[in-house]
Amino acid sequence: MIATKLIPRTASAQEQPLLVKTLLAQSLKYEPHREILYRDLFRMNYVTFNQRVRQLANLLLAEGVKPGDTVAVFDWDSHRYLECFFAIPCMGAILHTINVRLSPAQILYCMNHAEDKVVIIHEDFLPLLEAVKSQLTTVEKIILVSDKVYQNQEVNVPDGFVGEYESLLKTASDQYNFPDFDENTWATTFYTTGTTGNPKGVYFSHRQLFMHTMGLVTYISGYEAVPFHPTNDVYMPITPLFHVHAWGFPLLATMLSAKQVYPGRYEPDLILKLLTEEKVTLSHCVPTILTMVINCPGAKQADLSPWKVIIGGSALTKGLAKAALELGIQVYAGYGLSETAPVLSLTYLSDNERDLSIDEQVEFRTRAGRIAPFVDLQLQDDDGQPVPHDGHSLGELTVRGSWMTQGYYKEPERSEELWRNGWMHTGDVAAITPDNWIIIADRTKDVIKSGGEWVSSLAIENWLSQVEGIAESAVVGFPDEKWGERPHALVVLKPDYAGKVTAETIKTALQVHVTTGEINKWYVPDRIVIVTEIPKTSVGKLDKKKIRSEMKSLILS
Amino acid sequence: MIATKLIPRTASAQEQPLLVKTLLAQSLKYEPHREILYRDLFRMNYVTFNQRVRQLANLLLAEGVKPGDTVAVFDWDSHRYLECFFAIPCMGAILHTINVRLSPAQILYCMNHAEDKVVIIHEDFLPLLEAVKSQLTTVEKIILVSDKVYQNQEVNVPDGFVGEYESLLKTASDQYNFPDFDENTWATTFYTTGTTGNPKGVYFSHRQLFMHTMGLVTYISGYEAVPFHPTNDVYMPITPLFHVHAWGFPLLATMLSAKQVYPGRYEPDLILKLLTEEKVTLSHCVPTILTMVINCPGAKQADLSPWKVIIGGSALTKGLAKAALELGIQVYAGYGLSETAPVLSLTYLSDNERDLSIDEQVEFRTRAGRIAPFVDLQLQDDDGQPVPHDGHSLGELTVRGSWMTQGYYKEPERSEELWRNGWMHTGDVAAITPDNWIIIADRTKDVIKSGGEWVSSLAIENWLSQVEGIAESAVVGFPDEKWGERPHALVVLKPDYAGKVTAETIKTALQVHVTTGEINKWYVPDRIVIVTEIPKTSVGKLDKKKIRSEMKSLILS
Repeated sequence: MIATKLIPRTASAQEQPLLVKTLLAQSLKYEPHREILYRDLFRMNYVTFNQRVRQLANLLLAEGVKPGDTVAVFDWDSHRYLECFFAIPCMGAILHTINVRLSPAQILYCMNHAEDKVVIIHEDFLPLLEAVKSQLTTVEKIILVSDKVYQNQEVNVPDGFVGEYESLLKTASDQYNFPDFDENTWATTFYTTGTTGNPKGVYFSHRQLFMHTMGLVTYISGYEAVPFHPTNDVYMPITPLFHVHAWGFPLLATMLSAKQVYPGRYEPDLILKLLTEEKVTLSHCVPTILTMVINCPGAKQADLSPWKVIIGGSALTKGLAKAALELGIQVYAGYGLSETAPVLSLTYLSDNERDLSIDEQVEFRTRAGRIAPFVDLQLQDDDGQPVPHDGHSLGELTVRGSWMTQGYYKEPERSEELWRNGWMHTGDVAAITPDNWIIIADRTKDVIKSGGEWVSSLAIENWLSQVEGIAESAVVGFPDEKWGERPHALVVLKPDYAGKVTAETIKTALQVHVTTGEINKWYVPDRIVIVTEIPKTSVGKLDKKKIRSEMKSLILS
Repeated sequence: MIATKLIPRTASAQEQPLLVKTLLAQSLKYEPHREILYRDLFRMNYVTFNQRVRQLANLLLAEGVKPGDTVAVFDWDSHRYLECFFAIPCMGAILHTINVRLSPAQILYCMNHAEDKVVIIHEDFLPLLEAVKSQLTTVEKIILVSDKVYQNQEVNVPDGFVGEYESLLKTASDQYNFPDFDENTWATTFYTTGTTGNPKGVYFSHRQLFMHTMGLVTYISGYEAVPFHPTNDVYMPITPLFHVHAWGFPLLATMLSAKQVYPGRYEPDLILKLLTEEKVTLSHCVPTILTMVINCPGAKQADLSPWKVIIGGSALTKGLAKAALELGIQVYAGYGLSETAPVLSLTYLSDNERDLSIDEQVEFRTRAGRIAPFVDLQLQDDDGQPVPHDGHSLGELTVRGSWMTQGYYKEPERSEELWRNGWMHTGDVAAITPDNWIIIADRTKDVIKSGGEWVSSLAIENWLSQVEGIAESAVVGFPDEKWGERPHALVVLKPDYAGKVTAETIKTALQVHVTTGEINKWYVPDRIVIVTEIPKTSVGKLDKKKIRSEMKSLILS
């Protein structure tokens, strides 16, 4: 930072800090009549939503929540979760979004580590809590959430709980003057599971959430990377709200007072029903969910052409992109991490790319998108030196911006490792084109070094996805005496292909691309094993660590 | 501000400050092929633009400009001015946009007060500079700008000048690594002339310009208050770039890498030609300019239906709004001050207002717009107490937000007066509706107190604008023994109406609205005087101070 002349400020002058409450205030400004829905169970407009947010804040205040205290939430994707997204940070407290897919032991670790004081929990997750409750060291109050109240069924509140969410809200005042405070105030926290050690706590300030929302509105509404305008668009997340703030879109949709639909627990039939009946136009999800919706009975008859879907979490394969585009679904790909709030990039088709055929567009849409507004990405080699953004040189993606976690909570060494040399290290290996497209090659730990060449396991998985009969695949590297490392693949077949597709026919299919020069011959896996299931992590990604360890014997047998 | 828990930061972590260079970086990210034009003289794409911005920074660096130094610019609306908007702040220096309509004595005051070190000046303004040059106390270097270089004509560089802009740019390197620095760094300054005393210097930081751009992109692209998307839209300012950063739109258009057209000196025929040939879709201007374009020969034949125009500076009258809408031009109104960077509000038609007839829309479009995103407006009475936003109670508009000047430069008393009680006082009296429409009643000093009632001079001018034959009017209050104050009007007639319209016929026309109950009887001016011209300020607003002083004898005679 160089020294410059700062603006003078007269004593009484005010400059608004960047706070989540300012995003919330927007939701009432122009179109408060628009609706927020939960499944087919509950709907309200933004006036009611704002009242409920304040009722929740008053309820938490009454239960002793003070600025700096942490409130943990276990819930499906719901309007209640959205209320927590605003009420908890706006009162100066910290929202801890619990990953309900973690093991009880991991959840226990996270809750004690985060020092959760109050817990809001959906009854479906009570067994998870029950398993660890006796070992929780900081939790003082528990509030129960149940869908039964919307169906006029009786709710059974366990002993020792404060009560049930809806009943408690009703008794609380809907007036709450959210205070001003430092924009660097801690707003949210959640845990990311790596391949080694305990889960790591990332955290974001009000300013970071505000700026992430500014990046999104600039990219998707300004540039229209993924056109989204509240007058016509309807938003429905199909990424859990505990998964990196559902990628930040609930804050954007609320700020723009767009109609929002929360699907609760994911049920393909209900998702399809909400999509069509509520005229949903924008969603985001992992590839697995999109596959699920596309394959759902009824999808073929439904008009899905107004639907725009952003795929993240795992790479969008060409096979899936094409299948979706052929149904009229506009698919886009995004890239980011828990550490990056998360959006770093998103598909943006330039003036000259928008008119391409579906086949040609697939090439662009399956990349990891183009660098998002206000994000600074740099490829670095192992020594931290810049690698050219020429579209083919590979380097580790490192990042700077306005919404990156500034460390891992209470983990000084891992924090410095993450930010070594002043750039946040993503652990992903990629190429960047001169026009800012990101092509992810691999996780740094998953990239396969064969014969001195870096071989991308993702690229091989992508080629495999285009072989007829293959539903899913995972490629990992194993040591090889001659080449250093060689790729090996696990493959799951589509129903009806068992017996028809074998390791040999797959290799033959890949060889065709070798012959045409599309891939190098060393991309063809040494061994292809057909299995019925591939291990996944709690957020639905391929679990390569598990594959390498547990599946080693299977692959190398 | 309450105390909260701030996010911890590991030593090596970085968080990007909000800087103008981050907006500039966006212009190269996705669509660098789009163009920036200057009249019919010059066009370039964003790649060239970015190179020229860096050449300009190198040129200024070579001439001794350091962080914190001030560079003054005298120019018509040009691509060069846009280059100054970025190059000067991005190198850590301060851009002083000179209001070329001020008197030489005022310009001298401003330049010495701002401590301008380097001056960039279009040759058309040399006489202005010549008149004060000998009394300038801080200026060290002068760079000449001329349009002749684009016409292959010889440019005559005066003795002692550094040289001519284009030739100097050519010799400078196009590589400049704009540094990081504190986001509260002073970026721009300019002077606003009040009714008393010396011009006052307002100033804005990088963070404020960044956040103003975020407010605009959220409002016009996100909510589509005035739909603007760089894929289809073309921007042309017709507000001088020295007038509050041309309302901030050049920063927005550059960030979005939209096609931009700079019209230079305003010539109605050329503006119309640029509008149609370059397919301009978004402009902003004062009412006078819109009237000029509409009345230009050729306007009737031209297809102006893709044109969206935001009117500010003075109120948009119903007469002008209707005339424009009938030509297919979408007119919008904005409101703001020099002190507010400037946008505080802008027309936003809700879901249920967009489908109204032209006549019905005029009612909404001639209001001062609805409160812009992230802006907090409050009506206050004389004691600083809040006045309800009920659509009819009048109060002074006071404001807080992220882009308000934090004082007047070297004017501690006027700075505290502006920010008394922690709210910036606009000096405007208004009502605010429950759905956030602003209805400006008057300047606090122009409001007329008749019989204990506040009478809005603007409201009377608006009614006068709808009387057939009236081109323009100004209403001021004068003391009255019985009523305290009473309104008096100056009126300019349209050509061909001389003799046909008189003070009496105008009064009769207003009486009709009294009879129907649309206005109170005390709104009819005591005296209406027909004149050929009404005094204006340097930025084209009605000069009520001058009207009251100089015209007193005429009105009261």
